[in-house]
Amino acid sequence: MATKYVYFFGNGDAEGDESMRPILGGKGANLAQMAKAPLSLPVPPGFTISIDVCQEYYKLGKKYPAGLDAEVAKYLNKLETTFGKKLGDENDPLLVSVRSGAAESMPGMMDTILNLGLNDKSVVGLANKTNNPRFAWDAYRRFIQMYGNVAMGVDHDKFEEIISSVKAKAGVKEDTELTTENLQEIVAKYKEMYKKEKGEDFPQDPQVQMWGAIGAVFGSWMNERAIIYRKLNNIDENVIKGTAVTVMAMVFGNMGETSGTGVAFSRDPSTGENHFMAEYLINAQGEDVVAGIRTPMDISALEKQQPEIFKEISTIRDRLEAHYHDMQDMEFTVQEGKLFMLQCRNGKRTGPAAVKMAVDMVAEKMITKEEALLRVKPDQLDQLLHPQFEAKALKSAKPLASALNASPGAGCGEIVFTADEAVAEDKAGKKVILVRKETSPDDIAGMYVAQGILTSTGGRTSHAAVVARGMGTPCVCGCSDVVFTGKDTVTIGGKEFKKGDYISIDGSTGKVYGEVIPVTPASVSGDLETFLSWADEVRNASVRTTPSGKTVKGFDVLANAEQNEAPQAFRFGAAGIGLCRTEHMFFEEPKLTSFQKMIISDTTEERKANLAAILPLQQKDFYGIIKTMEGRAVTIRLLDPPLNEFVQAETPELAAALAKKLGVSVEVINKKYSELNEHNPMLGHRGCRLAITYPEIYETQVEAIARATAQAEKEGLKHDVRIMIPNVTTFAELKQIRAQAEAVIANVNKELGTSLKFQIGSMIEFPRAAATANQIAEYADFFSFGTNDLTQTTFGFSRDDYSKFIDSYLDQKVLLQDPFKTLDEDGVGVMIGLAEEKGRAVKADLHLGICGEHGGDPASIALCYKLGLNYVSCSPFRVPAARLAGAQAVIKSNK
Amino acid sequence: MATKYVYFFGNGDAEGDESMRPILGGKGANLAQMAKAPLSLPVPPGFTISIDVCQEYYKLGKKYPAGLDAEVAKYLNKLETTFGKKLGDENDPLLVSVRSGAAESMPGMMDTILNLGLNDKSVVGLANKTNNPRFAWDAYRRFIQMYGNVAMGVDHDKFEEIISSVKAKAGVKEDTELTTENLQEIVAKYKEMYKKEKGEDFPQDPQVQMWGAIGAVFGSWMNERAIIYRKLNNIDENVIKGTAVTVMAMVFGNMGETSGTGVAFSRDPSTGENHFMAEYLINAQGEDVVAGIRTPMDISALEKQQPEIFKEISTIRDRLEAHYHDMQDMEFTVQEGKLFMLQCRNGKRTGPAAVKMAVDMVAEKMITKEEALLRVKPDQLDQLLHPQFEAKALKSAKPLASALNASPGAGCGEIVFTADEAVAEDKAGKKVILVRKETSPDDIAGMYVAQGILTSTGGRTSHAAVVARGMGTPCVCGCSDVVFTGKDTVTIGGKEFKKGDYISIDGSTGKVYGEVIPVTPASVSGDLETFLSWADEVRNASVRTTPSGKTVKGFDVLANAEQNEAPQAFRFGAAGIGLCRTEHMFFEEPKLTSFQKMIISDTTEERKANLAAILPLQQKDFYGIIKTMEGRAVTIRLLDPPLNEFVQAETPELAAALAKKLGVSVEVINKKYSELNEHNPMLGHRGCRLAITYPEIYETQVEAIARATAQAEKEGLKHDVRIMIPNVTTFAELKQIRAQAEAVIANVNKELGTSLKFQIGSMIEFPRAAATANQIAEYADFFSFGTNDLTQTTFGFSRDDYSKFIDSYLDQKVLLQDPFKTLDEDGVGVMIGLAEEKGRAVKADLHLGICGEHGGDPASIALCYKLGLNYVSCSPFRVPAARLAGAQAVIKSNK
Repeated sequence: MATKYVYFFGNGDAEGDESMRPILGGKGANLAQMAKAPLSLPVPPGFTISIDVCQEYYKLGKKYPAGLDAEVAKYLNKLETTFGKKLGDENDPLLVSVRSGAAESMPGMMDTILNLGLNDKSVVGLANKTNNPRFAWDAYRRFIQMYGNVAMGVDHDKFEEIISSVKAKAGVKEDTELTTENLQEIVAKYKEMYKKEKGEDFPQDPQVQMWGAIGAVFGSWMNERAIIYRKLNNIDENVIKGTAVTVMAMVFGNMGETSGTGVAFSRDPSTGENHFMAEYLINAQGEDVVAGIRTPMDISALEKQQPEIFKEISTIRDRLEAHYHDMQDMEFTVQEGKLFMLQCRNGKRTGPAAVKMAVDMVAEKMITKEEALLRVKPDQLDQLLHPQFEAKALKSAKPLASALNASPGAGCGEIVFTADEAVAEDKAGKKVILVRKETSPDDIAGMYVAQGILTSTGGRTSHAAVVARGMGTPCVCGCSDVVFTGKDTVTIGGKEFKKGDYISIDGSTGKVYGEVIPVTPASVSGDLETFLSWADEVRNASVRTTPSGKTVKGFDVLANAEQNEAPQAFRFGAAGIGLCRTEHMFFEEPKLTSFQKMIISDTTEERKANLAAILPLQQKDFYGIIKTMEGRAVTIRLLDPPLNEFVQAETPELAAALAKKLGVSVEVINKKYSELNEHNPMLGHRGCRLAITYPEIYETQVEAIARATAQAEKEGLKHDVRIMIPNVTTFAELKQIRAQAEAVIANVNKELGTSLKFQIGSMIEFPRAAATANQIAEYADFFSFGTNDLTQTTFGFSRDDYSKFIDSYLDQKVLLQDPFKTLDEDGVGVMIGLAEEKGRAVKADLHLGICGEHGGDPASIALCYKLGLNYVSCSPFRVPAARLAGAQAVIKSNK
Repeated sequence: MATKYVYFFGNGDAEGDESMRPILGGKGANLAQMAKAPLSLPVPPGFTISIDVCQEYYKLGKKYPAGLDAEVAKYLNKLETTFGKKLGDENDPLLVSVRSGAAESMPGMMDTILNLGLNDKSVVGLANKTNNPRFAWDAYRRFIQMYGNVAMGVDHDKFEEIISSVKAKAGVKEDTELTTENLQEIVAKYKEMYKKEKGEDFPQDPQVQMWGAIGAVFGSWMNERAIIYRKLNNIDENVIKGTAVTVMAMVFGNMGETSGTGVAFSRDPSTGENHFMAEYLINAQGEDVVAGIRTPMDISALEKQQPEIFKEISTIRDRLEAHYHDMQDMEFTVQEGKLFMLQCRNGKRTGPAAVKMAVDMVAEKMITKEEALLRVKPDQLDQLLHPQFEAKALKSAKPLASALNASPGAGCGEIVFTADEAVAEDKAGKKVILVRKETSPDDIAGMYVAQGILTSTGGRTSHAAVVARGMGTPCVCGCSDVVFTGKDTVTIGGKEFKKGDYISIDGSTGKVYGEVIPVTPASVSGDLETFLSWADEVRNASVRTTPSGKTVKGFDVLANAEQNEAPQAFRFGAAGIGLCRTEHMFFEEPKLTSFQKMIISDTTEERKANLAAILPLQQKDFYGIIKTMEGRAVTIRLLDPPLNEFVQAETPELAAALAKKLGVSVEVINKKYSELNEHNPMLGHRGCRLAITYPEIYETQVEAIARATAQAEKEGLKHDVRIMIPNVTTFAELKQIRAQAEAVIANVNKELGTSLKFQIGSMIEFPRAAATANQIAEYADFFSFGTNDLTQTTFGFSRDDYSKFIDSYLDQKVLLQDPFKTLDEDGVGVMIGLAEEKGRAVKADLHLGICGEHGGDPASIALCYKLGLNYVSCSPFRVPAARLAGAQAVIKSNK
């Protein structure tokens, strides 16, 4: 049997239904579903050419599969019979729309052609039949313009020039003021221009028009904006394989005062409130609503003016929601008092609305909690957790520049150029945006008080971006339109600014504005709490078998946080801290000075003396975190970065300043700086390698941890402190460091009369650690995958340098996703799987998690779940999204 | 049954034999073997305390296992009975030596004590019994000194001071001139000093003496020089687990003119010639030979003076060789006309001797070819392939400094400080040593003409080291004793030198000399050719099953070589070129200028124009290599390093020079330099990543390869050219680049009427490539593991930076070997294994090899064989060693 390519709908029945989205596209499937019982809604008849044809069309080099023409002819005939009009009929022509529709909504990205079937003869028939020549000629005018532009590629401006010239001659301003004669003149001029442009007459044969329009819609699948849209929205072309084409009878909302066209939402897509929303334009075609030329009436006005229509569409709203169990976005047209449904689909919504609808629909018993959890995209929660620009103010604001959306949320304040200025202005009660080329660890204090951070260089994993995300501060990064023109001046997108001028930045969109845009603060509603508690229930109850055959229960979300972020982590529901980076604590004075003195020391004794000065300060920091977390896990990673990050001496000025601060000669600083400088610092002398060469560093840190825990214990506080060793390459590192740490802990226990024990675990950041996980597991109580470094070494990509080629890779589909955003299953996933299998072969219940940047990425979280990890740890502001994403992974995996 | 700890030998029988080396050590096992039938050689009786006791001794905290004392007492009694003397007997005392002996020879590293059993009374008995008081008192003097120093730790100088003072008082110069009275005075003073130093009398009880000596020998297993020796000689303490202690009756070569002591070699250990060599000292103890105080007579003198002894030892020589099937190193003593064998072992030998003996012994049917192949260490072949200092001249030379032995061979010449000077002096007929801080690709021409290269910074994998090894030029690297004091001056080890002064360097030992030392050129003897042909036979015939269950036949050795090295590679028997680094070809002018212009181009067109200028020159290079290799494989790797290696502009001077050369502004250079600069260049924009962003680079290289091959084909030359893509991270890179390359090849075929096909393969240098080898294999005809980069990324170690911590790692045994010298089985081996399994799952006969620095390392070669690789590729000068090491891997694996 030949493949079926075309599916009919209308007249209370349909060959397809909503389950056939992959074949009919969203629009075609929903039209079929609406048309047939039990909904049996008034849908103009039509047929849908399947997505398979789109694939064939491209496979065959933009040709149609054999037999399609006959099948289309058959269904067109059925359409004509059903609707009682014939395409091209000179007295009473059938007009059709030709519409796109992929399995996933891509609003506005592909082409649509309306009013098809008009020609020099049928336009007269239409005028006579409707007794409305102006309507008919306006429809013909619109059709030539749309078909000429969309299907035949004639420049849009050429049409607009003709309209403008006719309007000028007629002395009118609006299109609606054009008379039938004006429109006839426009049609004539359009055709003349078309012939000149295309070298042939505008097609009069409706069959030619229809096939031209079908080709245009299939062609639009591969137009540039559609490709970019799919890329930006992570629409995988192996899943969403093309567009369907729906040909359906035209109905007209522009046939007088009892006609009209509308768009409706079954609930408020902005707030999620359960009230019907609709916009309706009397005597108009759908495109007029979209074009925004006239202001539509709202739902209450419709109720007054056309109560029977309001009642009918309200009933349909209820029936559609009851059927689809979701908020519906509907398009309808009223032709001379009769309602037609042109489209329905699950409506897009804001984050807050998504949460509210999900919670409400569970309360209404419309959906289950699991279904509710799948209704909200994890990224949508960002809108509930970060300040946003006031929507109205934003509408009228024009961005000066656009760059990387590095840390979400909106911020507005006066420009400052240094961290010190930021701190000073903050003390003076001002709100500031810190604008810098890039940030460094020295800038932390200024970054912390800023409303937002804007940098001219650096990517999503630059210092500014990583720290800002951790702090929840809005950040726009790598904005090359920011050009520093002097000490206190900058141009942004060519416009000059000086210190103290106001700008606004949106870290969610990457946009920069040269004006004040008021900001509304974030609020965590009760609905969100309810919603996330369901996510926790689902994750906690989860049980799965890992690829290596082990059973793992539960799936936790922890946070990457130090003392400043711990309260946020706690509030956002982190099950604990999965990564406390002790080095961040060294960047505060007076710890920094002592640590720098330690680094430039030549002997173990000097190093120990300087470390001793830091010990009580670190102890205080650790104690604070333990107290904040109220007994939840606190995983403290010992020193990780290379020491050169603490010695800023790349210029003579910096070297001199540091020498003065540390009370040594510039020569000493320069010598140390040069000794510490590395060719490939990411692969250099860092992490636990420092503890092999200088054991006293980790010993001091462990002592501070033990004393802080002892202090908490003596005060009766709950505590669950874990020690994590970074950069482990071989088990022998961990074995030795563990023994040293346990000796230090034993000493503290002896001195203080405590009997503290700590889990000691290993980061897995290098493929060798994964490959030898069985050896490492002998000495590790847990593993935490540092997926940033693991991705770097597995790929051989430097995070700091890969921006030079990653765009080419993504554009050419050499990579399908940025591996530093979404964990790479094929490569890094194999390493994690190796470690899981080998580690748990030695310790069946070995606790595994990740604490890289991927911990907040939904796709990566799903992979972690699949690979059998016990937890993910991410920045505090990503914790709610991760709690949800984890639950979604569980639900999808259970299906 | 209690463990047996002690083993007797003597009186024509023994409890042990040579198979018991792991228990008795080499010395103990060979003494037993010599003592018992069928050899039944005259060995003084004794017993050996096993290596197990050494292990127990350390396990128990330097205590002996229970029962050992009784067992020793029993065997001492047996020794006394056998020898007819009693330890401590006041009239006729038994004297014993207490000797160390591990399972592997560690000459001179551990302790030995002679003449034990003497005390104030037995010395008199000995004097009377031998009627030789001077001998007896000299023996007692020696014993106190040796025991005091070795067993009790009394400073050697304290004894020497006493001897000197007595000699001064007596007015004599030599020890031999001391009278009995002098010796008695010395003994008295020794004992006095001993008491002062140790707070107790010198032990008079021979039992105390014996146990003290046994403890000293076991203790010497862990003395610093023994530990260092094991480390330097890669003696694994898990295999060679300790020392045995042999207590044997003393015989005396210093009892008059019919006594003497000697050392003999069954063949010449320097040349390997099959003639008996011995050195003999009349009236002397063994230690006198070692001390070099007197000049021993040679074998012909012995034959004349003591023909019966000569005849006996000659017979023993023949019997020992016939028994051990190897050249023997023997120690013997003649006591009053009676010969005693004190030791025999397989003799150490030079590389040339090892090869000659191996080949001769096969001809003599003493050993098989396989045995012969195991007799020569691969590294020993270096001595046959590189120039060496003349041995005599070297003996009197004193090194000024010592650093990394980066590329073997000796060189002597005038100092030059720049590559240009080297080239100029070479043209003037001078021999030069290039002395630099470090070298860069710009220095290639100068490095090529130099006799040797000496750098003050950089490690074994620095540019200088890698290039020098490739060229076979001697190189000493990272010599911090080289200090540049001016443009044309330097100090080496504190001594001043200027341009034109002579120095000599030995790249095999890392030593630097401030004088002329004549150099003898390398010669490849006929024996070596024969020997290596056996190695080839063994490798070619090998068949094995890989860990993934595939059958692999043969194991080839290829070379890493470009046009200059290809002839050497061919001569040294490489089966082909496994790695031709095209980037090396870009460093020659005028290619370099064109390539630099290409790099600073802003458009594809500019890049193509500059590449077009390079194309015919690369074609010429490739053609030359193809011709040289006479149909053997030529594997050409397309551009690998980051482009910044070609743009030297780190100083304003360099930038200005480059700008002038390329005819652009300094700003252009600085901008490009800054764009190309990377944080972690090893993980940056390089290799095939450049071909994704700039496809024209690889397309040009492929075209040059295709045209060169076509040229060879038209001339009737044999060719087997393969194209290798570096830095592959994902199959999609290879897929795309392969398609582009095949299009280029098709064009060349079309234009030239050829039908060339090329194997196109992938480097596997990143763990992700290994993990996704099944995907990559779909597009690859072969894999070559780039084990340098694979080690870097698997470990997360930067080759350029790891010198900061690797010594600590090796010292603390956190790593047991340097992973850049010897391939890491546990980690990198897992990656190679993954790739082997996944790659061959897709293509069962996928050709696999390595082309990193490890390709010349014997242990790494053995691992490659085990993992199922088809070949290794190494620098030309390592090819002979690799041919041998590969054969050894085969033989050992077949056992």
